[in-house]
Amino acid sequence: MSSKITIGLFGFGVVGEGLYNVINESKIQDAQIKTIVVKDKNKSRSIGKDHFSFDPEDILEDESINLVVELINDAAAAYDIVTTALKRKKNVVSANKKLIAEHLDELIALARENDVSFLYEAAVGGAIPVVRNLEEYYNNDLLTSVEGIVNGTTNYILTQLAAGGTYQETLKTAQELGFAEIDPTLDVDGFDAKFKLTLLLKHAFGVSADYRKIQQIGIRNIKAADAAYAKEKGYKIKLLARAERIEDGVLGYVAPHFITNTNLLYNVNDEFNGIVVEGAFADRQLFYGKGAGSYPTASAVLSDISAIKYAYKYEYKKATDNNLKLSGNFLVKVYVGSEFVELINEIPFVRIDEVFQSEGYSYQTGWVDFSELQKFQLNSIPGLSVIFLPEPILHKSKAKGLEVSKKQYQVEF
Amino acid sequence: MSSKITIGLFGFGVVGEGLYNVINESKIQDAQIKTIVVKDKNKSRSIGKDHFSFDPEDILEDESINLVVELINDAAAAYDIVTTALKRKKNVVSANKKLIAEHLDELIALARENDVSFLYEAAVGGAIPVVRNLEEYYNNDLLTSVEGIVNGTTNYILTQLAAGGTYQETLKTAQELGFAEIDPTLDVDGFDAKFKLTLLLKHAFGVSADYRKIQQIGIRNIKAADAAYAKEKGYKIKLLARAERIEDGVLGYVAPHFITNTNLLYNVNDEFNGIVVEGAFADRQLFYGKGAGSYPTASAVLSDISAIKYAYKYEYKKATDNNLKLSGNFLVKVYVGSEFVELINEIPFVRIDEVFQSEGYSYQTGWVDFSELQKFQLNSIPGLSVIFLPEPILHKSKAKGLEVSKKQYQVEF
Repeated sequence: MSSKITIGLFGFGVVGEGLYNVINESKIQDAQIKTIVVKDKNKSRSIGKDHFSFDPEDILEDESINLVVELINDAAAAYDIVTTALKRKKNVVSANKKLIAEHLDELIALARENDVSFLYEAAVGGAIPVVRNLEEYYNNDLLTSVEGIVNGTTNYILTQLAAGGTYQETLKTAQELGFAEIDPTLDVDGFDAKFKLTLLLKHAFGVSADYRKIQQIGIRNIKAADAAYAKEKGYKIKLLARAERIEDGVLGYVAPHFITNTNLLYNVNDEFNGIVVEGAFADRQLFYGKGAGSYPTASAVLSDISAIKYAYKYEYKKATDNNLKLSGNFLVKVYVGSEFVELINEIPFVRIDEVFQSEGYSYQTGWVDFSELQKFQLNSIPGLSVIFLPEPILHKSKAKGLEVSKKQYQVEF
Repeated sequence: MSSKITIGLFGFGVVGEGLYNVINESKIQDAQIKTIVVKDKNKSRSIGKDHFSFDPEDILEDESINLVVELINDAAAAYDIVTTALKRKKNVVSANKKLIAEHLDELIALARENDVSFLYEAAVGGAIPVVRNLEEYYNNDLLTSVEGIVNGTTNYILTQLAAGGTYQETLKTAQELGFAEIDPTLDVDGFDAKFKLTLLLKHAFGVSADYRKIQQIGIRNIKAADAAYAKEKGYKIKLLARAERIEDGVLGYVAPHFITNTNLLYNVNDEFNGIVVEGAFADRQLFYGKGAGSYPTASAVLSDISAIKYAYKYEYKKATDNNLKLSGNFLVKVYVGSEFVELINEIPFVRIDEVFQSEGYSYQTGWVDFSELQKFQLNSIPGLSVIFLPEPILHKSKAKGLEVSKKQYQVEF
C-alpha cells in the first residue's frame, strides 16, 4: 500500500535544514532526500557543499524523484518550481503560504490534472495539524467558525505590549530573537495571517477567496494606550484570522481583537499559535502549539511526506458541496483609538456607544458596517488603532434599529 | 473512491440519539441508518417505536448493512456484537472504551483477518480527534509523551473542589447535572481514564498494555485540605492519564497531579478534556474540547463513518516498529495527605522532602518508587490522598544518591 519516496528538496534555510535533520533522526523508512537544490553557492551551511546542487533541473528533470519539497522564501521562484513539478507528475509538499494563497485554485487544478498530491500542512499553524483536520475530521460536521492566532510574531509582540512594553521596543526584541523579519511588514500588517486565512477558508468552508480582497488590519498602530484599555477591561489584544459561516455566505478577515477569558485563545501567548474550530456537533475545539520554527514546521512537512507514501490527497469536498462566497454584509463592534480625534471621526460609525477624549489620547467604541471599513487601508493610517470588540458580529439583515443618533456623544475638546 | 454506507446502529442512548440527529441534520451523502436495535422495548424514546428492532440479528444477519455502529453501555453485550460483526465482514465503529481496552488486540486481529475497518475515535476525548492524529499525523515524529485530562466528570469535580466545594457536594451536583453516573466508581476511581489510556498507549507508542495491570489512582479520597494545599502553592489538581517514553520502555498510569500554570492542561477546567502531545520535532501541542456529551461524541462517530467511506483503517504502525513495553522503573515525587499519620507512614518514601503535621490533617511530600506504589490499592484506603507533584519522574538508573535519611523528619504529634 505504501510506496517509496525519493525527495528533491528546494531550500536549506531553517525549515529545510530542520527537515533534513528530522528525516535523518527519525529514521523514516522508504523516504530519502536524493537532491537538495539551493540558490546561494557561497553561503556557509551545516553540511558539506557536496550535498547541494544549484540547478533546479537537477531535481525537476530527475525521473527517480517522485516528491518535490519546496521550502524557499521567494514565492515567485517557488511558483515556477511547484507548477513545473506538478506538470511533470511529481507530488509536491510546500510550506509557502504566500505562493499557495496566491495560486491555490490553479495549483489544485494542476495537481488534479496530473493525478499527484499537493499538500501544505506546514503552511498554516506550523506543527498544528489544522489543514488535515479540517479536511478530514470535520468534513461532515456543520462547521460554524474557524478562528485563530496564526502568526507567532505578532502574538509575541502583543503579549509583550500587554506586559507593558512599547511596540517599537518589542518589535526590536522580536527581531533580535529571530521571531520577526528585518522588514516585518508581512507579519505586522497581517499579510501572513491573511495568506493562512485563505487556506483555512478553502478547507473549512470551500470558499475560493482572492486574498487581495480580504480585509486585513495589522498591529502596527496599536499603542500603549490601547493595551491599557485592554487591561482595564480584562481583555487581551490578539490578532485573529477569522472565518465564520454567516447568513449569506462566509465572513473572512484578519484584525486585532479584544478578547475575554471566555475565548479559548485568551491563554495563547508569546509566539504560540492556536486555532479554535467550532462545529454544530463537535462544539468548540482548540488546537494549540508552535506555529513556526525549524523543527515544528519540519514536523508538519514530514507528516505530509508520510501521507504521500499512502497517496493521500486533499479532496476539497466542501468546495464542491457548498459553493459559498465571502460576504461583507455585517456590522462589527469596534474600538477606534488615536491621539487625533479627526482620525477617529473618519470612521463611519453606524452607532457610537462610548466616547473618551483627552489631550493625549481619545477613543470611540461602536458599530461599523464592515463593508464600509473595508474601504480603508487601515494599516496606512499611522496613529489610528482599530480593534474589534468581543461582541459577535451582527448581520445586516438583523441590524435594523441599531442606528441611534450617531452624533449624540460627539463633543469638542 | 468512496462507497455507500448502510448502517446498523446498536443503542439509542444519548450518543445513539445524537448520532441519529446528526446524520439527519448534516445531510451526509451515501450514509444512512437502516436498522436501530435497542434492548428495552418499553422505554419511551424521541422517535416512534416503528424505528426500532430488538433482535441483534436484524442487523448482524442483514447483508446489506456494511457498517455496525455500537453505542451501548453493556461491554459484555458489546463484545458479542462487535466480534460477530467483524467476523461477518462488517466494518465497526464503537465508542465503548471499556470493551476496546479489554479486547483491543483481539479486535484488531479480527478486523485484519476479515479486512474490515474497526474505528473508535469517540472512545477517547469525545470530539477531540486524538486517536486519528496520533495514528496518522505523529507517525514519524519521535513522540515523547501524551498526557491528558480524559475524564470530564472528575475534571468537573476537581474544578469545583478548587472553588471551595466539598467532594460529596460536588459529586452530587455532577450527578444532578448528568455529568456523573449514579455509581460513579468508573469515573472517580480512574477506570474510565485508564481504559482511554490503554488506547493512547497503543496509538502513541505501540504498547499493548493489559489495562488490569495499569496503576490508577482516582480522586475519591481528595479532600478540602488537599485543595487548600494546591491553592497555597498555585497548583491545580488534575486527574491525568499519562504515557511517556522513558529509558527502558513507556510509563503509563492514571493519577491525580498537582500541576503548575506552565502545564498546558492548567486551563482545562470543568467538564472539558485536553490532551497534550509532545514530540521531539512538533514540540508540545494541546488538543482541547468537549470530551463527552451527545453531540460531541456523535460528531466523532460520524467522522469515523466518513473515514469508512474511504476504507480508512488504523495501521498501528508503531506497534510493529517499536516493540515497547510498560515500565515501572522510575521514582515519582508525591504528596500524601491524611487525617491519620499512620496511613501516611504506610507509603514507602525513598526520600521525604516535607512533613506537615497537625491535629486535623497531615501530609508528607517526597520521592517514592513507582513500582512500590503499584502494590497499593490506593482507591481503597479511605482518608489517604496520593497526588503526584509537578516534578518530572526520575528513572531508577538516575536516582542514585536520592536516599537521604528518610526518617529524619518524622516526629510524634
